[in-house]
Amino acid sequence: MENKIINLGIFGFGVVGQGLYEVLNRTKGINARIKKICIKDPNKSRPIDSSYFTTDKNDILEDPAIDVVVELINDTEAAFEIVSTALRNGKAVVSASKRMIAENLPALYQLQAENKVPFLYEASSCASIPIIRNLEEYYDNDLLNAVEGICNGSTNYILTKIFEENLSFETALKQAQDLGFAETDPTLDIEGFDPKFKIVILLLHAFGTFVKPEEVFNFGIHHLNDFDIQFAKQRNCTIKLIAQCRRQNGHVFSYVLPHLIKEHNLLYDVYNEYNGILLESAFTDKQFFVGKGAGGTATGSAVLSDISALLYNYRYEYKKIKQNNQPSFTNDVQLKIYLRYKTQGQVDLAEFFHISEKYESAEWRYVVGTINLQKLREAGWLKNKDVNILVLE
Amino acid sequence: MENKIINLGIFGFGVVGQGLYEVLNRTKGINARIKKICIKDPNKSRPIDSSYFTTDKNDILEDPAIDVVVELINDTEAAFEIVSTALRNGKAVVSASKRMIAENLPALYQLQAENKVPFLYEASSCASIPIIRNLEEYYDNDLLNAVEGICNGSTNYILTKIFEENLSFETALKQAQDLGFAETDPTLDIEGFDPKFKIVILLLHAFGTFVKPEEVFNFGIHHLNDFDIQFAKQRNCTIKLIAQCRRQNGHVFSYVLPHLIKEHNLLYDVYNEYNGILLESAFTDKQFFVGKGAGGTATGSAVLSDISALLYNYRYEYKKIKQNNQPSFTNDVQLKIYLRYKTQGQVDLAEFFHISEKYESAEWRYVVGTINLQKLREAGWLKNKDVNILVLE
Repeated sequence: MENKIINLGIFGFGVVGQGLYEVLNRTKGINARIKKICIKDPNKSRPIDSSYFTTDKNDILEDPAIDVVVELINDTEAAFEIVSTALRNGKAVVSASKRMIAENLPALYQLQAENKVPFLYEASSCASIPIIRNLEEYYDNDLLNAVEGICNGSTNYILTKIFEENLSFETALKQAQDLGFAETDPTLDIEGFDPKFKIVILLLHAFGTFVKPEEVFNFGIHHLNDFDIQFAKQRNCTIKLIAQCRRQNGHVFSYVLPHLIKEHNLLYDVYNEYNGILLESAFTDKQFFVGKGAGGTATGSAVLSDISALLYNYRYEYKKIKQNNQPSFTNDVQLKIYLRYKTQGQVDLAEFFHISEKYESAEWRYVVGTINLQKLREAGWLKNKDVNILVLE
Repeated sequence: MENKIINLGIFGFGVVGQGLYEVLNRTKGINARIKKICIKDPNKSRPIDSSYFTTDKNDILEDPAIDVVVELINDTEAAFEIVSTALRNGKAVVSASKRMIAENLPALYQLQAENKVPFLYEASSCASIPIIRNLEEYYDNDLLNAVEGICNGSTNYILTKIFEENLSFETALKQAQDLGFAETDPTLDIEGFDPKFKIVILLLHAFGTFVKPEEVFNFGIHHLNDFDIQFAKQRNCTIKLIAQCRRQNGHVFSYVLPHLIKEHNLLYDVYNEYNGILLESAFTDKQFFVGKGAGGTATGSAVLSDISALLYNYRYEYKKIKQNNQPSFTNDVQLKIYLRYKTQGQVDLAEFFHISEKYESAEWRYVVGTINLQKLREAGWLKNKDVNILVLE
């Protein structure tokens, strides 16, 4: 498509859509212009000219003059419908919808292959960090062992405020929402669903393995209390919500869990709404990427990078799928965790493989020990608000 | 070239060449094999079969079966001769020779364009960090303000040992050399030439501006003494050798200078032979990349990534050159520095624009003030071993 002007049809004009509009307007040298923006509510007041807007999706999907469909809406089902129709209609698609993508990766992979059109989604994982592109392009010859990191800006903002400014969980959450870092439904962030969608996407590009989001265990920071925070501080650690996928004995496992992080760990210094991704590989040891994980222009800029890549006929090659030596997914690994609870009987310590520390006081108890990830995933007792876990390094 | 096997002709079999051999051997899924390796000394004992080796460059340059020439030698003039002949002969070229590339960027840019063959050199800048590829591919739509970072593994190793383990400069240098992190000629590292070659390359890919290495001022850590180290520690800072290029008022300036770095700065935590690059842009704020900047397999892996990219017909687009709105290069900027010296008359304080602090004792004196980069570049007094400078944040 080089040297021609790309016509964009955009779905959604929220934080990211408006960020994209701003970024596009201030960028010289990108031959792309917005032809139509499809929105739900025609009566909402908009910061740009009304001639841009339509409520009829076919004004974009059926317009042969539109080359690229940019999907930036919150409704997962509607997003999948839009993206798959666009791909079938031979249009290139750029999307930022992590949940929709994570839940439909096999179908979307098929659709882009069958219809021979590019489908790019850099903004879906860690916003401004070009992690998918780097996994695709740069680590295909490297023996990757692990991808782990902080993939959720709002929980990282909350944890930063708790550890650096001694704010309460509630005050920090409120601040994050006021600043627009938290998603529409905060439980997606706080319970670790949002980073799970991202790690499922990254796992495919890192290892070539398709995994359903429901196979990956996620537990967030919603049970965190002052006792846990003191436990971390006494050990000169901070707490970060970590999403990871890691190769082990020919398999790959993955989870989203709060971790104790020591000061020398590169992830320790990822603050506020920033995200950080640590890659471990056989030849290059550790590689680390840091960038803003939330915010309109940061995400809009990632979307525009995908649009710009389309001008150079870029598409994901999914080389690791094609190499046909993907590790299979497993939850059968041992994790060393801290488990905090209030009264005996709230947890089942018999499920531990090994317990190395036990503590009890009138208020709280904890154990440190090794437990199988699959057992943790099935543990009903984790639903109890009195119970929390932290993974130890 | 997809699906065919690439035949490689390699020049040089030192640390990087052997690293490449190892990485290639352990990597499945890369359709590339070494056909010939051209070396200088046929009598040196080699860890692999002698049938690989030749001393006649034409066995590679004139062999039509060789698709890709990989240039990994230390001799700058010979390297340029090899690379330009290979490009003229229509072969794709991968090189890790930062000095040769930095000194010949305009000619090499012309050669790859005229002969319509790819010329890739990711390993030349920050070894395992995919920074050139990211600047090329990912930041073309972003309004980049600055690229700054730690681009030299051996000086960073030395500074880490000095600050973290209180080693003397000499002991730390010896350790770096024993570990193979230091270049053949340590002055290239210690006086800041090596990172200068890298920043000249990055400047072209970041801003589209050609700059000759001799236009960029470099001053290393060769004058650093205990007094400077104490000065840094008293201010809760560390010292890092920083290469940077930065946009200012429509121009771009660049230098390599030792900096005081505060604890909250992401570069503070880049230790040992690791490199770190911080990008500042209008939309994504700060982006940070960390990875090993030295060592055979780390650099070999970067070379192999370029080879792998050739399989997918990748080449640098040099979009920022083509966009034709490059900032022009300048040295006319003010820097805030610490200047340490022994006796009056060793330095010319009249060259300062402004002085905010003055200190003197029987042993050492220093001033803190603002000075023009061009004046610093021309200052003969900086050659005096009693004189050192540090840039302040």
